[in-house]
Amino acid sequence: MRDFLPADVRRRSHVIAVIRGVYEKYGFEPLETPAVENIETLLGKYGDEGNQLIFKILKRGEHEASGLADLALRYDLTVPLSRVVAEHRATLPKFFKRYQIQPVWRADRPARGRFREFYQCDVDAIGSTSPVVETELCAAACEAVQALGFADVVLRLNHRAILGGVLDTAGVPTASHGDALVALDKLDKIGVAGVRAEYEQRGLRATAAEAVLEILAHGGTGAAAPTVRSAEAAEADWPADPQRHQSHNAAVLDRVTAFVASHAAALDGIGTLRRVLELAAGTPASAHLRIDLSLARGLSYYTGCIMEMAVPDLVGSLGGGGRYDRLVGMFLGQQVPAAGFSLGLERILVVMTEREMFPAHVARGGADVLVAQWSAARAGDAVVLAHALRAGDLRVEVYPDADKLGKQFKYAASTGVPLVVIEGDDERAAGEIAVKDLRSGAQQRLPRVEAAARLRDLLDPSLWRAGAS
Amino acid sequence: MRDFLPADVRRRSHVIAVIRGVYEKYGFEPLETPAVENIETLLGKYGDEGNQLIFKILKRGEHEASGLADLALRYDLTVPLSRVVAEHRATLPKFFKRYQIQPVWRADRPARGRFREFYQCDVDAIGSTSPVVETELCAAACEAVQALGFADVVLRLNHRAILGGVLDTAGVPTASHGDALVALDKLDKIGVAGVRAEYEQRGLRATAAEAVLEILAHGGTGAAAPTVRSAEAAEADWPADPQRHQSHNAAVLDRVTAFVASHAAALDGIGTLRRVLELAAGTPASAHLRIDLSLARGLSYYTGCIMEMAVPDLVGSLGGGGRYDRLVGMFLGQQVPAAGFSLGLERILVVMTEREMFPAHVARGGADVLVAQWSAARAGDAVVLAHALRAGDLRVEVYPDADKLGKQFKYAASTGVPLVVIEGDDERAAGEIAVKDLRSGAQQRLPRVEAAARLRDLLDPSLWRAGAS
Repeated sequence: MRDFLPADVRRRSHVIAVIRGVYEKYGFEPLETPAVENIETLLGKYGDEGNQLIFKILKRGEHEASGLADLALRYDLTVPLSRVVAEHRATLPKFFKRYQIQPVWRADRPARGRFREFYQCDVDAIGSTSPVVETELCAAACEAVQALGFADVVLRLNHRAILGGVLDTAGVPTASHGDALVALDKLDKIGVAGVRAEYEQRGLRATAAEAVLEILAHGGTGAAAPTVRSAEAAEADWPADPQRHQSHNAAVLDRVTAFVASHAAALDGIGTLRRVLELAAGTPASAHLRIDLSLARGLSYYTGCIMEMAVPDLVGSLGGGGRYDRLVGMFLGQQVPAAGFSLGLERILVVMTEREMFPAHVARGGADVLVAQWSAARAGDAVVLAHALRAGDLRVEVYPDADKLGKQFKYAASTGVPLVVIEGDDERAAGEIAVKDLRSGAQQRLPRVEAAARLRDLLDPSLWRAGAS
Repeated sequence: MRDFLPADVRRRSHVIAVIRGVYEKYGFEPLETPAVENIETLLGKYGDEGNQLIFKILKRGEHEASGLADLALRYDLTVPLSRVVAEHRATLPKFFKRYQIQPVWRADRPARGRFREFYQCDVDAIGSTSPVVETELCAAACEAVQALGFADVVLRLNHRAILGGVLDTAGVPTASHGDALVALDKLDKIGVAGVRAEYEQRGLRATAAEAVLEILAHGGTGAAAPTVRSAEAAEADWPADPQRHQSHNAAVLDRVTAFVASHAAALDGIGTLRRVLELAAGTPASAHLRIDLSLARGLSYYTGCIMEMAVPDLVGSLGGGGRYDRLVGMFLGQQVPAAGFSLGLERILVVMTEREMFPAHVARGGADVLVAQWSAARAGDAVVLAHALRAGDLRVEVYPDADKLGKQFKYAASTGVPLVVIEGDDERAAGEIAVKDLRSGAQQRLPRVEAAARLRDLLDPSLWRAGAS
C-alpha cells in the first residue's frame, strides 16, 4: 500500500475530477459506501480465489482473542452497490444511476501496477434491461478517457449468452462452461496454444475445443489472435480507421450467427450487441467499439453484455464492465436489472504518467507566493501581508522562522514556488513590497495596495487559474 | 458505518471542496495515506483506550486461522503523517505543510454524530517551532469554517506547559499530572463539582485541587464555568463583540502569570500564547481566539499550544489541534517539530444541516435534462440528442425504456429533473425539439440546432453553473 505525496495526489485528483465531471454530464449521481462491510456481504460473491483475497477484520473487545472476523474491507464497488440498492430500494429512483470513486482492498501479491489498495471509478445504471443502458455506459467510459487525452482506446464487447451458445453448439457440457471460460479468459496471457492445452487437461473433447477456439479466439479477434501483445499485433488491433472496427464487427457477428444457428439465447445476445453498436453511432463510443468473442471477463456475476477497454501500450485493461441482472437479487430476493462499467484509476495513471499526459497546472502545484520574514519582530507583518494576498486569491506560504534571507530564498527555490515577496523596512516606509521572480531572477517593487493583482499578473494565467480552483 | 446517497455525497463534497480550497490558499499541499497501517505503527500512540478502539486485520493465507492481526485501520491522520515524515524525510521540503482529508476508523460505540467511520480534515505544518505556525493554523481553520458560513466560532487556546506549570505550582506531584488533566478534560461534561470529586477520588490534596480549579476552571473560562452548556452559558461564551475576548484573554494571562510566578516552562508557554494572539491580529482568527486554561485535549502527544473550535449549538468541538514536537521522533529517532489542526467533517455537517447552511446548488444535484424516448425504434435519436446536449455542458439523463410518455414524465417528476425534452416525429420533421419545464408546466418547441444553449437559458444560471462544475 502506498503513500501519495502532494505531486501524486494532484495527478490522482485531476483524473478523478475529469472522470467525475463526465459521469455527472451523463446524469450519474455520486454514491459512497463504507470501507468496511459485514463479512457475509462479501463472501461468496467473487469466487473461491476472491474469498481468499478479502481482508478480514477481527471482532472487537473480548472477542478479539477468538480470532473471529465479522467485518471485511470492501473488495469492489459492485457488491456494495447491490447491497445499497437492496437496502434503500424504497427511497431510490426507479432508475438509479450512480458513480462511485473509492478505494478497494485485495490481499493480492503486489506487482507492477497492481496494489493491495487501489481506486475504482465505477458507473452503474440500475433498473432497466434496455441496451440504451449499455450504450450510455460505453459512451460515458469512452468520453471519460477521451477527456483525459486517450484517443486510442478500444472497447471490446461480447455477451455471456453468445459464449454460452458457442459452447453449447460446440458440444461442451454445461457443467464445463465455467472451466472453458476461465481458460478462455487467459487467452491474452497464454495464447491459443495455451488455451488448447488447458482444454485438453480439463478433458474437453478435442473437436469441441477446436470449434470453440476457431469461433471464439480466431473468429473473435480476427486473423491474428493476440498470443503476445507485440507491436505488430497492437497496430493490427488499434487501427486509426474506425471503419475497420465496423467491418470487423459485422463479419464476426455474421459468422457467430451462422455458427450458433438456432440457439435462441445466443441469437438474443447477438441481437443486443447489434443494437448497442447501432445505438452508439454518434456517441463518443462509436469509433472504439470492437466485437471480441474471446472476451470472457473473470467475474461470475455477469449475465449479458460484457466489455473491456484497452490501449496498445498496456498489458491488461483500463477498465471493464457488463450487465449483472442477478446480483442485486442475491440481497433483495427480487431481481433488479443492472449494468456497470469500472475504470481502473491506477492503470490510467500508469499510462498517463508514461505518456506524460498531465496538464502543466497539475504538475506544478504548491504555493504561488512565499512571504519571507524580514525579522522576528516583524513576523506579524508577514502574516498580515499573506492574509492580504490570500484575499486576492493567491496561494501563499509564510516562511515561519526569521532566518537569514539567503536561507529563505534557498528554501523557496527548493519548493518550486515562483515568487518570493518581502516587506523590508524601506519598502514598508514607501508603502511597497519587494518581489523576486525565481524563474527569471528579476526583482521589482510593487505598491502594497495593488500587490495581489500585480502578483497574479506575474504568474502564468493558465497555471494560476487552475491552481487557485 | 453509513452509506452516503447522492444528496449526502453532494453535501460532503461541498464542505470538503471549501475546506480544501482554503487550505490550498494557505500553501498546504495534499497528502493521502493508505487506510491500512502496520499494527505496530498505531499501537501505543493513542493511550490504552485508543488501543482497544483500533480495528485490527487478520493475517492472510495460512496465518488466518492463527487469529493474529498484523495490520490495522487508520485511527487518525496525525500518526500516519508522522510515519510519512519519518519515511520520506529526504524528499520532503524542510517545511512540509500538508492537508489530508480522509476517513478514519474507531471501534467506538456509535452515538449521535459519532460514527465508526468518519472523515477528518487535517492540516499540519512540519519543521518549525515558530508561533507563526500556530497562528497560520488558527487562521486557516477559522477561514475554512467562515467560508462554510460559520460566523460564530470560538477558538479556545491553551498551552500544555501552562497546565503543567499550574499543576506544579499548586503542588500536584508530576506523577499525578496525567490524572489531573484527564479529569479536567471532562469539565464540559461533569462540571467543576464533578472534577473536584474526581480529584478527591484520585487522592489529590484538597488545597491543591482547589488551587487548580480556581485558576484553570474559574480563571480560565471567566466567572461562569461551563457546568452545563445552557443557553445563558452559551451566550456568555460567544460574545458578538471580539473586544470581550481580548480583555478576557489579557486578564486570564495576567492572572496565570502571577500564579505560576517563576515557573520557567509555564512562563514560556504564556509568552507563546501572547505571541500567537499578537500575530493573529489582522487574520481571520483574530476575533475568535479565546484563552481557556481549562482546555486540556485528550491526546497525550501534544507538547505546546493546544486549541479547540466550538459553536454554541453543538456539544463538543468542530475541531481541534495543537503542537506535537515529539511524535515524529517516535518514528524517526530524531525530533522534528510539528503542529496541526483537525476539523471534524461529521460535526460540521451536523451543524450545517441543522442550520440549513448549504447553498441551493448543493441541495439540487441530479441531471439538468431528461431526454424522453419517443419510441423503441427511435431510441438511437434520443441517445444522439443527449450527446448533443452534453456537448453543450448540460447534465443529461436518457430515459432507457420506450415506456408510455406519461410514465416517463412521472419518472422525471420523481427525480426532480427540471426539464424534459422529447424529439417526436413532428418535431423531428421540423428540426425542433419539444421541452416541458416541470417547475412551471410550460411547454415549448426549440430549434434542434440551438437546443443546448436555449435549455441552459431555461435553467437558473447559478444552479446550472455550479452543477456543471
